[in-house]
Amino acid sequence: MTDRTISYGAFNAKLSDFKAAALRVSKDVVTTPLLALDVSDRNLMLKAECLQSLGSFKIRAGANAIETANKASLRNGVVTASAGNFGQGVAQAAVSRGLSVDVIAPDTASVVKLEALHKLGARVKTVSFDDWWEVMVSRSPGVDGFFIHPVEELSVIMGNGGIGLEIVNQFPQVDVVVVPVGGGGMISGIALAMKALGKRPRIIACEIESSTPLFSAKLAGKPVKVSRGPSWIDGIGSTSVLPKMWPLLDALVDDVVVVSHKEAAKALRTLAQDAHLVSEGAGAVALAAALRPEFSGLNIVSVISGGNIDMTTFSRILHGEDF
Amino acid sequence: MTDRTISYGAFNAKLSDFKAAALRVSKDVVTTPLLALDVSDRNLMLKAECLQSLGSFKIRAGANAIETANKASLRNGVVTASAGNFGQGVAQAAVSRGLSVDVIAPDTASVVKLEALHKLGARVKTVSFDDWWEVMVSRSPGVDGFFIHPVEELSVIMGNGGIGLEIVNQFPQVDVVVVPVGGGGMISGIALAMKALGKRPRIIACEIESSTPLFSAKLAGKPVKVSRGPSWIDGIGSTSVLPKMWPLLDALVDDVVVVSHKEAAKALRTLAQDAHLVSEGAGAVALAAALRPEFSGLNIVSVISGGNIDMTTFSRILHGEDF
Repeated sequence: MTDRTISYGAFNAKLSDFKAAALRVSKDVVTTPLLALDVSDRNLMLKAECLQSLGSFKIRAGANAIETANKASLRNGVVTASAGNFGQGVAQAAVSRGLSVDVIAPDTASVVKLEALHKLGARVKTVSFDDWWEVMVSRSPGVDGFFIHPVEELSVIMGNGGIGLEIVNQFPQVDVVVVPVGGGGMISGIALAMKALGKRPRIIACEIESSTPLFSAKLAGKPVKVSRGPSWIDGIGSTSVLPKMWPLLDALVDDVVVVSHKEAAKALRTLAQDAHLVSEGAGAVALAAALRPEFSGLNIVSVISGGNIDMTTFSRILHGEDF
Repeated sequence: MTDRTISYGAFNAKLSDFKAAALRVSKDVVTTPLLALDVSDRNLMLKAECLQSLGSFKIRAGANAIETANKASLRNGVVTASAGNFGQGVAQAAVSRGLSVDVIAPDTASVVKLEALHKLGARVKTVSFDDWWEVMVSRSPGVDGFFIHPVEELSVIMGNGGIGLEIVNQFPQVDVVVVPVGGGGMISGIALAMKALGKRPRIIACEIESSTPLFSAKLAGKPVKVSRGPSWIDGIGSTSVLPKMWPLLDALVDDVVVVSHKEAAKALRTLAQDAHLVSEGAGAVALAAALRPEFSGLNIVSVISGGNIDMTTFSRILHGEDF
């Protein structure tokens, strides 16, 4: 296979770069199974990233970001801004390499995610959602250390690319990939790695109805400020597409499916009952989107991004509550 | 590697036989991941058989039993006696090959398992636990068709052996394997396949406190009749070790750990929260046993046999009930 270069604006990478990133983090990462879900009118496969050791795909990017950093720049440890899963990935990768970690988290993050960060040995600073978003945009966390942006770093996108390489290897006939979008680092990495392999599946982003920054940006043709309603689903749903990510997302994402809370709750129950997976809300959104009628007859992969959900919320939804 | 012959009483098989069985069912079976669970004092790995397409290891044996049957004997379809998961395995393997299926099930089987059988296209006949056990012992189901015993067939034991081959491949340093015991077909297959590979891990059976036929047989030196108390855990716990299985279980099982309902409930919650797996009761029993102090410092695999649990029971236990 040729070592294709993929270029989108400022982004340039070759297939060999994606492969090198996957190899670099192979000790931190599980090659997650692609599990068939029995649906009568389509071949639906679940990429079970909830089975990573910390229950989320973000270990891929966290480990790659630290591995590719300049050694001297890591002297004061690492700092990140994260709703939880990415912070966990960075924290585990850092602590296992003897580095300190500071995490700036929004106060909307779930308790289970903050507890997990503490347990891993991270110092956590909780700020308002708006202040946290300001750190995401400005990249100025106000704390010493090597700053790793949870979305827009090249190393993050490359780390996430491993998911795309694995999907193509496990299911070469894939027509459609459905990916939950928070900042867009995962969907970008998956799409770019697949293009580097010469594959062109339709790339479908999904968002929850309470916050649709990418859907709205696609409509407007540019990032716009959107409202952010209450939701039991964390990890996706910000108030705007990050300006630096917009060119990539505009070019790579073919369509955005907006999912209701009722659909997401039903998908969460399906994942538990039929796939025997504990998914977080974002993963349930990805399944709900993949079950839409327009994907009938296709080979479709739904990326179950993680499994870190508050057990009380989870058991209430299993019990039939939709809230 | 030499093609070792393993002999225990009437049982004789070679490594190449186990490998042939695994190959024969490779289209029906997922190579399930071996997932690390973070426990401070041991290397604990979960063999996630709950991720098979029907949520249970039993598809391995069901498919192998049908594949190895004489074609003429299958003319009237197949019949089995099963608490559910094995019936499902046989049903899926049969229906996908155009054969009819009758299942004799005990009325203690969970509703979710009986519904799954119907959905797969099986005819289900429910009988009392005692009548069902009589079918298990006599092999006379009173229904036409090729009878497949859920435990004591050679083809069943060989099919289950695939789990042992995969564990050795995924975790060669394994010291201990913990397996839930119903009839004993899974633990026998795993132990024999590992011995055929030249491995000698300690083979630990586990049972739930409400019914301990193997623990009691080991104490008495022969199968004895035990009482069977109420339990939310189905699929394991009969009233006696099957006479034909006793010589194998006596020789292969190094120890039996009896787990309380409280321990099992806690393990079920751990599997959901930390491993993001939905397990049935028997799998939780296997984790609870593997967490016992005596396995500290060891490389231990816990076989999470399946994930078919009633969602109401599951959500109640997640919510903190121990019942």
